[in-house]
Amino acid sequence: MDRSAEFRRWKAQCLNKADLSRKGSVDEDVVELVQLLNEREQFFTTSSCAGRIVLLDGGINGFEVQKQNCHWLLVTHRPCVKDDLIVALNKANGDAVLKFEPLILHVQCQQLQDAQILHSVAVESGFRNSGITVGKRGKTMLAVRSTHGLEVPLSHMGKLMVTEEYIDFLLKIANQKLEENKRRIERFYNCLQHALERETDSYPKEKINKKSNSYSHKKKKKQGKASGKCTTEENDKELENDDDLGISVTIFPEDY
Amino acid sequence: MDRSAEFRRWKAQCLNKADLSRKGSVDEDVVELVQLLNEREQFFTTSSCAGRIVLLDGGINGFEVQKQNCHWLLVTHRPCVKDDLIVALNKANGDAVLKFEPLILHVQCQQLQDAQILHSVAVESGFRNSGITVGKRGKTMLAVRSTHGLEVPLSHMGKLMVTEEYIDFLLKIANQKLEENKRRIERFYNCLQHALERETDSYPKEKINKKSNSYSHKKKKKQGKASGKCTTEENDKELENDDDLGISVTIFPEDY
Repeated sequence: MDRSAEFRRWKAQCLNKADLSRKGSVDEDVVELVQLLNEREQFFTTSSCAGRIVLLDGGINGFEVQKQNCHWLLVTHRPCVKDDLIVALNKANGDAVLKFEPLILHVQCQQLQDAQILHSVAVESGFRNSGITVGKRGKTMLAVRSTHGLEVPLSHMGKLMVTEEYIDFLLKIANQKLEENKRRIERFYNCLQHALERETDSYPKEKINKKSNSYSHKKKKKQGKASGKCTTEENDKELENDDDLGISVTIFPEDY
Repeated sequence: MDRSAEFRRWKAQCLNKADLSRKGSVDEDVVELVQLLNEREQFFTTSSCAGRIVLLDGGINGFEVQKQNCHWLLVTHRPCVKDDLIVALNKANGDAVLKFEPLILHVQCQQLQDAQILHSVAVESGFRNSGITVGKRGKTMLAVRSTHGLEVPLSHMGKLMVTEEYIDFLLKIANQKLEENKRRIERFYNCLQHALERETDSYPKEKINKKSNSYSHKKKKKQGKASGKCTTEENDKELENDDDLGISVTIFPEDY
């Protein structure tokens, strides 16, 4: 079986499987983006989270939460209200940690060049920690990730370690990050549309999948157009906020 | 000029340049790893940070710090002492944020397959957010990143928002993460050594660079062997602590 036939088989298998996430559906804020990708023959999404604020009841030392003994006290993809967080915190027995987790999206790509295009669009949109993985069997995956997080220990062995004033302050920041993340998703959607249009001109017609709806995860189409403009201007801040800020740099290829 | 000649030219250019980082040298905890990579013809490091605890005096809304108006109040690659943090916090005018930043390492690779080997070693060692970038001119870069961070707003417009008890608690966690990061670097070093040995058997001899010392960033050789074993056992916790935990997953290729 040639590579493109094998890719089509993988894609069909993947998108016809049930959604195995706890939530069981694609997050609303990312449905359009997921559809845009799955409508193209050269891409399909294998996992996604639009971005969320979570409160996890961790181990006994505030260390990284392990799946098996991880307690989800709160999960929201919308701005978090203080009272909800307080209620959730009161249920904590271990070390509760508040996290803001930005968009994470895994997209399998037919060719490396497809992953390259998607990668540059992701970085251009502010998702600077995105990267490509190439598996032994040649499966090429792009992981879309942002540098834009928050991880704040709030309680120790069930005891709250911060004031209510601090929780107010923290939630304002977490909610701002959630909004900024949403703007970046819209920017990503628009940048991707433009990149795919440019590419289509120099691409065989059949690359645009006619049966697009069968690849839409059978999720409701989100109404309303994404508003973020395709410009690097908006994410200058993010680009300035570089992982490499002040780290040991010999040279960094301008155009790598 | 063929690809390998061009790569050698890039490598020579890069490693002969002065270190442009604020610190001006490779962090001690990562010197051995950087040397191991630069001794191989198919790799060279373009930037590195072993991992650190930093206190940044940010904007006026706790939002992501921008390079131009970013104030470094504290930077340490060693466990942070409370008094030092208190002194630094007293200098904050804006919104000070404490961050633990794990290892970040950028490695340019000659071939995609070289990046693939390095990527699997990185993930195996616990650096699960690592990813490959392939530039327009074919420059292939691996970014080694961990999921393992901390980002905690501590003051608002110069006013401390947490108690001294909380700072104690927080520093204990930050210092634990710094130690765990160090263990992962040692694991990475050992896993890489094994991977390169395996690979050497099926690799042309000249791939091992004789002039290794000219590629060592002229940094002092760190004494003492890295102790971390090459095993996935140790980083099960990290593997459990998956980005994809609970996110919308249709299917995730086992071996991608």
